[in-house]
Amino acid sequence: MSAAISPLAPRTYAELAPIAGVRLATAAAGIKYAGRTDVLMMVFDEGTSVAGVFTTSRCPSAPVDFSRESLKGGRARALVVNSGNANAFTGRRGRESTRLTAEAAAGALGCATGEVFLASTGVIGEPLDAGKFSGLLGEMAASADGAGWRGAGEAIMTTDTYPKLATRNARIGEVQVRINGIAKGAGMIAPDMATMLSFVATDAAIAPGALQALLREAVAPSFNSVTVDSDTSTSDTLLLFATGKAGGEVVEDAADPRLGDFRAALNSLLLDLARQVARDGEGARKEIAVTVEGAVSDASAKRIAMSIANSPLVKTAVAGEDANWGRVVMAVGKAGEPADRDRLAIWFGDVRVATEGERDPAYSEAQASQAMQADEITIRVELGLGDGRWTVYSCDLTKEYVAINGDYRS
Amino acid sequence: MSAAISPLAPRTYAELAPIAGVRLATAAAGIKYAGRTDVLMMVFDEGTSVAGVFTTSRCPSAPVDFSRESLKGGRARALVVNSGNANAFTGRRGRESTRLTAEAAAGALGCATGEVFLASTGVIGEPLDAGKFSGLLGEMAASADGAGWRGAGEAIMTTDTYPKLATRNARIGEVQVRINGIAKGAGMIAPDMATMLSFVATDAAIAPGALQALLREAVAPSFNSVTVDSDTSTSDTLLLFATGKAGGEVVEDAADPRLGDFRAALNSLLLDLARQVARDGEGARKEIAVTVEGAVSDASAKRIAMSIANSPLVKTAVAGEDANWGRVVMAVGKAGEPADRDRLAIWFGDVRVATEGERDPAYSEAQASQAMQADEITIRVELGLGDGRWTVYSCDLTKEYVAINGDYRS
Repeated sequence: MSAAISPLAPRTYAELAPIAGVRLATAAAGIKYAGRTDVLMMVFDEGTSVAGVFTTSRCPSAPVDFSRESLKGGRARALVVNSGNANAFTGRRGRESTRLTAEAAAGALGCATGEVFLASTGVIGEPLDAGKFSGLLGEMAASADGAGWRGAGEAIMTTDTYPKLATRNARIGEVQVRINGIAKGAGMIAPDMATMLSFVATDAAIAPGALQALLREAVAPSFNSVTVDSDTSTSDTLLLFATGKAGGEVVEDAADPRLGDFRAALNSLLLDLARQVARDGEGARKEIAVTVEGAVSDASAKRIAMSIANSPLVKTAVAGEDANWGRVVMAVGKAGEPADRDRLAIWFGDVRVATEGERDPAYSEAQASQAMQADEITIRVELGLGDGRWTVYSCDLTKEYVAINGDYRS
Repeated sequence: MSAAISPLAPRTYAELAPIAGVRLATAAAGIKYAGRTDVLMMVFDEGTSVAGVFTTSRCPSAPVDFSRESLKGGRARALVVNSGNANAFTGRRGRESTRLTAEAAAGALGCATGEVFLASTGVIGEPLDAGKFSGLLGEMAASADGAGWRGAGEAIMTTDTYPKLATRNARIGEVQVRINGIAKGAGMIAPDMATMLSFVATDAAIAPGALQALLREAVAPSFNSVTVDSDTSTSDTLLLFATGKAGGEVVEDAADPRLGDFRAALNSLLLDLARQVARDGEGARKEIAVTVEGAVSDASAKRIAMSIANSPLVKTAVAGEDANWGRVVMAVGKAGEPADRDRLAIWFGDVRVATEGERDPAYSEAQASQAMQADEITIRVELGLGDGRWTVYSCDLTKEYVAINGDYRS
């Protein structure tokens, strides 16, 4: 693991004020790491709605299976997260471990195990000894309080170099509500849904069905548009909890016009967290935003943008500050989506490097190289075929990525 | 570019004897590289059949467009290849460049331009000045001879650290024939069809239609089962020329039973060349062979094997000699193909590391680590669902890959 903090880390961390109906606690259970917290417990007041989206992996972790099942009830009282061990591909013992953890949490709060949500992140394939932290949950539930969001973000880190935090305010009718979110993720980051763990809570009063619809909508341009290395985790989990403690009538329908401001705030918060994940991509020195325009559809634009953002050759070129637009052409071509070579135009930042299927007549190597020196590299491709448009976020591929992942488990 | 030769380079190079009806010449035109050859001309006797397969890129290079067109005629008299510039994404000027080159070759041989085949490899997006070598073709055609296969292999190299050469003998009925092949490719290597350039010639007498069928069949388990970095080139070209000079009746049908031995020899030669490409993957220190068995179909097995072979996390783990089978599980899961987590078994070399969805009870870290120290790493996954089976070849992902590609164009 790299000790250095990403050069793309935020200069200052967002301050997350308490959310009514949410209490947090962290602990150091020594699951894998020494000298740091590795367990997070979030406790929710009765009546909290929950929505969630999970990895599309055909080999999901035991906690993903568990939380998917709990989600059917639509209600949450507790979330327990550990870092250092993903409890994935751990067979019967993995299921046993989730059962013990959920029973300990439910016992501490006097709730049903179906109101408990679980997430684990870290090494795959190692048995997770629930005994390491299930005994701590009673004390954690008792001591949990409304502060400590930053500590929560830190407890769920693995190869992350900084905690990911975001907060937004919004109005639902006359009611002022707040949304807080944390995320972790640095490698094995790819859609769909973009990997990692993220937990978001609000005091808004929104029924489970409406909350799920809002979350599905918000995840497409944010977490599902982020890729670090094209590798989809077994453990991707994004949960959104709504306590209703801000008051007001419970909103039952995602199409309710009163949700306009909340929807915008949620979308903005998820995009913020997702970009923080991309910017902490393992070994990342530069963020890459790829926008494809003029595609035959948004879906086609997204597939082409992903092909560019996942290309090792594009990503290493960005690492080398090389305005190598030929590799962008290659990545457009391999996506398998409609594209007309002779209509393509490509920009790095504000510099148009190619047009009508050739190098821009006004191409200047100096200008293009200048554009590549920024921390945030924008690659824009205009296909000239239709109105489809999408933006995805990624990062460069550096020697540090190889170093981090060539010596992670041992 | 890396100067060091891959540790996976062959200890000795195959000696390629002349093929009746094929003459070769190389020249140094200074297209990009100094102090080396960068143009190859192959001249074929009249009556030579040709078969070919090309990149599936939606943005193919100008020479790919040109050779596709020539292939319709089924006959070849000349092949002209240059390294250092791919003549891809060069618009009208690219087409002009292929026309000039083909006219120069056709003029030198007194044949039609439709009997000329072209291939270019190197940087994308830079105009290729055909004048740099079209003037050389007359002299090259005059001086070409049957020897010089190794020189031919060297002239088409880009970031390759060694020339790729292979030869096989076969019988068609009572006639003894020979097949020689060369290939280049080190980065931007992915199916389908696996990138790179490869040119194969035989003195067998096989009609164009049958030759094309044989080539399509042979390319699936060889070049289309190799990936270095998941990036499909704009320029992938594999051409197979059959001069018929060995004599015997021309075989018109690929299903002709007399082709059994030739088919086996061709398949073996293409797999040999394809593996040489994987073993010279940019920065490669280890070859990876991924076999997936027990899938619902061969196609499904191939997609899962490709997902494993393309995973940056699997490839960096191999680079770090880390028996990280959790990442193999991840890559199986993300492939989107039928898989049952709780039936999976995984081997590194001969060491079974996981079975029935869990770490093998007999797992030994020492044994697994030992298996990872080999130059050739075999990863085998048994899905337990059906009879589908496929093997793909790749290489590890090292810091040198990043170094080579972060500073290639400049």
